[in-house]
Amino acid sequence: METIGFIGTGHLGYPIAANLIAAGYTVKIYNRTRDKALPLEAQGAILVNTPEETATPGGIVFSLVSDDKAVEAVATAALLQALGKDGIHVSMSTISPDTSRTLAAQHLEQGVHYVTAPIFARPEAAAAKVGTAVISGHAAAKERIKPMLSAGFAKNIFDLGEDAGSANVLKLMGNFMIAGAIEMMAEAFTLGEKNNVDPRLAYEMLTTTLFAAPIFRNYGGIILDRQFTENPSFSATLGLKDMDLVLQTGRKSHTPLPLANLVQSRLTTVIAKGLKEADWTALSGGAREDAGL
Amino acid sequence: METIGFIGTGHLGYPIAANLIAAGYTVKIYNRTRDKALPLEAQGAILVNTPEETATPGGIVFSLVSDDKAVEAVATAALLQALGKDGIHVSMSTISPDTSRTLAAQHLEQGVHYVTAPIFARPEAAAAKVGTAVISGHAAAKERIKPMLSAGFAKNIFDLGEDAGSANVLKLMGNFMIAGAIEMMAEAFTLGEKNNVDPRLAYEMLTTTLFAAPIFRNYGGIILDRQFTENPSFSATLGLKDMDLVLQTGRKSHTPLPLANLVQSRLTTVIAKGLKEADWTALSGGAREDAGL
Repeated sequence: METIGFIGTGHLGYPIAANLIAAGYTVKIYNRTRDKALPLEAQGAILVNTPEETATPGGIVFSLVSDDKAVEAVATAALLQALGKDGIHVSMSTISPDTSRTLAAQHLEQGVHYVTAPIFARPEAAAAKVGTAVISGHAAAKERIKPMLSAGFAKNIFDLGEDAGSANVLKLMGNFMIAGAIEMMAEAFTLGEKNNVDPRLAYEMLTTTLFAAPIFRNYGGIILDRQFTENPSFSATLGLKDMDLVLQTGRKSHTPLPLANLVQSRLTTVIAKGLKEADWTALSGGAREDAGL
Repeated sequence: METIGFIGTGHLGYPIAANLIAAGYTVKIYNRTRDKALPLEAQGAILVNTPEETATPGGIVFSLVSDDKAVEAVATAALLQALGKDGIHVSMSTISPDTSRTLAAQHLEQGVHYVTAPIFARPEAAAAKVGTAVISGHAAAKERIKPMLSAGFAKNIFDLGEDAGSANVLKLMGNFMIAGAIEMMAEAFTLGEKNNVDPRLAYEMLTTTLFAAPIFRNYGGIILDRQFTENPSFSATLGLKDMDLVLQTGRKSHTPLPLANLVQSRLTTVIAKGLKEADWTALSGGAREDAGL
């Protein structure tokens, strides 16, 4: 099977890289903090020391890093040269749609296709290959990478067309809706708590009927338990970065987003209180604290 | 089978009364606009001319009317006298928890039990008996009415204890979350529409994965179709009334609810634009129009 490159083995990248190795791919891995990727070497990965060493000519490199700057830092001229004609860079990070569009144009100058493929999955869902991929970019390149997305983390793949930015927009829409759902539950549970309704009973009712969706079921439980600093799987810092991107995208396109402003403000408060590494569901503390709880 | 009373055969009361008749109960119906209840007479109901005529001594009367004042207007001294000792008034309307608590105390003075049992169901779901009931009030009274709730509309019944107000609070929490979900989708779809993401594809992705719950699936479709004035099943006027109750309950209990403020404002705009009879999903127009669409 094909040799593929993988850049970024954080919370989410790690289980995806592990799945690709288990599926039989030869995976060349670059991670800024090399030590974190060492267990993957034991599973069969080849660890390399620069982003460009992950590439083979005409091959495929996946990247999953923290933000726009980090993607720009790994998508070096050296990486694009190493990939060369018909090479593909699959950018899975949650970044600005405009950054993806700019990168796509730069890649194409070297004959490289840039495919945007952000991930909807918590690490455990990625590990279990029940995540969702949304993809956009060059048609033939997308077809070539689909089996790898399935082998890596995705149960469902939604194709948004050729514009490299579209998949980023949908990822931001989804993350905004998750943050909105957290705020919504936080306000509702707080109203219940202050008015003689057991929030846990309310949670049971709401998340098994009207709101019987994974987001409400999973995040609702975390909100009620208030264990935001134990095993956070998506940090308040990353959540705030994403809401910044949502509002930046809204600002550029003249789209006022009052609920996004609210959740951005909530996440800013989480970080102001020194909880930048807490799970982003900690934003639910805002409604409670505002109510004196 | 038992003779029961039913007050209020509007959009939601009508299918519930019809189900009770079909289940074999003798149902005495009072509706302010008598003509609307006439088809139920053909199905076997007995139409009466005052709320108190629906009652039998020690029996059960259901009421489902528009707001606090309307409940107070039907729960007359005459009705309570006609129900008498061990009679039950099942109040299904979405009203203030404090109104329920006051009514419960007044009912008890006549030996009547007041049970709060608001409904989570659109009319078609009530007709199909797949709705959800949340109930609170006197324990033995609740047990006595449960079979009727199941026969009338409810697939699930959640019991919130003895405080008559608690079930109203949970109903308000649920309706607030529905309104919040509408706003959330409206902002997300608008961001997509302005940034090269087909809202319908986004809807498919979001409502079959992360947000695969009836609320998002059903309301999301209505939002995208923007057919708010054709077959509205819950009007903007009623939605605004409910958000007023949410904020009033929050105000009394010192619970700031910024998202509830936002959706209240959106619904106020719907009505300001002359669409008071439109479906309350019309509040989704706010985000679109603010973005110049």
